Amino acid sequence: MEKIVSPKNDRIKNWSKLKTKKYRDKMNLYILENWHLIKEAINYDQAVETLLFTENQYKLHHNEIQNIESYEVIIISEEIALKLGSTKTPQGAFAIVKLPHTNSIIDNEIINGKWLLLDNVQDPGNIGTMIRTADAADMNGVVFGDGTSDIFNSKVLRSMQGSNFHIKIIKYDLNSWVDTCNNLSIPVYGSELNPQAVDYNSIKSSDCFSLIMGNEGNGMQKSLLAKTTNNLYIPIKGNAESLNVAVAAGILMFSLCK
Amino acid sequence: MEKIVSPKNDRIKNWSKLKTKKYRDKMNLYILENWHLIKEAINYDQAVETLLFTENQYKLHHNEIQNIESYEVIIISEEIALKLGSTKTPQGAFAIVKLPHTNSIIDNEIINGKWLLLDNVQDPGNIGTMIRTADAADMNGVVFGDGTSDIFNSKVLRSMQGSNFHIKIIKYDLNSWVDTCNNLSIPVYGSELNPQAVDYNSIKSSDCFSLIMGNEGNGMQKSLLAKTTNNLYIPIKGNAESLNVAVAAGILMFSLCK
Repeated sequence: MEKIVSPKNDRIKNWSKLKTKKYRDKMNLYILENWHLIKEAINYDQAVETLLFTENQYKLHHNEIQNIESYEVIIISEEIALKLGSTKTPQGAFAIVKLPHTNSIIDNEIINGKWLLLDNVQDPGNIGTMIRTADAADMNGVVFGDGTSDIFNSKVLRSMQGSNFHIKIIKYDLNSWVDTCNNLSIPVYGSELNPQAVDYNSIKSSDCFSLIMGNEGNGMQKSLLAKTTNNLYIPIKGNAESLNVAVAAGILMFSLCK
Repeated sequence: MEKIVSPKNDRIKNWSKLKTKKYRDKMNLYILENWHLIKEAINYDQAVETLLFTENQYKLHHNEIQNIESYEVIIISEEIALKLGSTKTPQGAFAIVKLPHTNSIIDNEIINGKWLLLDNVQDPGNIGTMIRTADAADMNGVVFGDGTSDIFNSKVLRSMQGSNFHIKIIKYDLNSWVDTCNNLSIPVYGSELNPQAVDYNSIKSSDCFSLIMGNEGNGMQKSLLAKTTNNLYIPIKGNAESLNVAVAAGILMFSLCK
């Protein structure tokens, strides 16, 4: 088994660049951190190419990997773990994984389900949490519109807790998606407070809808707002001006998927 | 108006120490960042002692402050803003505020309302988001049990978005609180999945309950679990193992406060 101790090793230097989207796209790879998530990636047949463990993490987990010989396994120093990790105290387990193939053709069968649409959502923690919640609420998947942060950002990966392996994640133009919903008479719910908005409690749960969450500061883009079936609001009774976007998405998804 | 340009100024050095709980307790002060939150603190009659602005922030906001002469106002350099701020790009507006007086005697009238109890919750973002949500759901307040992160942590302050000025925040022993609820026949809801737990949808909303959220990894402490009226669960239908604690709290509070 190979062992690398120097953070200046060329492969390590390249892998540490996977922290940027530019380099992930160029290499068609991403870096996954923490044993819990790596195990989920393996269980859900993701294209794991290389596993990197500190001595300690290897001892703890190598027995849990079936067909370990099918992966390249490298033992790394603590210093390298610090270089590859995204936190001050990395666990010491990493996987280098091929970016999943993204569907660019969406057929009516796919769209015919429960979908969360992210319109220019910025905070990686919010995005990851919404994907985790969409999984728990039994949504079919999440559609990333233009401007929404990259799913392979370390903080998004951490907040998703592996839910990206359970449900579909699609990058797609949200205007086209919503146009198709409208053609198929699938309800599209916006989440902006406007005079026409209706209390989310008045909408019955169903097996087929798209719910749009907008940017944390600016809400949804106008062209999408104009195309929604309904805009839903969550009645705020106290003095808070608004809800955190991930909390609002959770309340709406669990109500619509009841 | 005083102007301080050197980050080595003694008062600046002392205020920058307010980032630690130890020093906040020692000085009986905390530091509040960002104009939006400072304005809320002023509007809700918090004990603001000193206002610190960069030139630019002062120009933007000084007209919005009524009775500005009742505060000590200091113009600071960008360098000082970086030293006092908790982010890489601080806005440049700060307030030094006296810690609010915390109630150590809880009477039955106070407890007779809708309360969120935090049992050893760790993540500052989660805590702040739950307080913001409790405000929006019209809860009476939030009780911090032992072990829960400090409310005056910069990330908690940021995530609360000023909701701490709108609802009551109390530090109290949760076991005593729950004992009092039980004596007064006020329902106490736990949020741990155990065989006796009931679907949250089966519980009617009411004007009087305490809801306990536990630690992100380990859940609620056993002694509290044993004293709850009901433990509530949110049915998870997908493959996610659990929900983020702030999302779960949001779903439960908005259901119980309907």
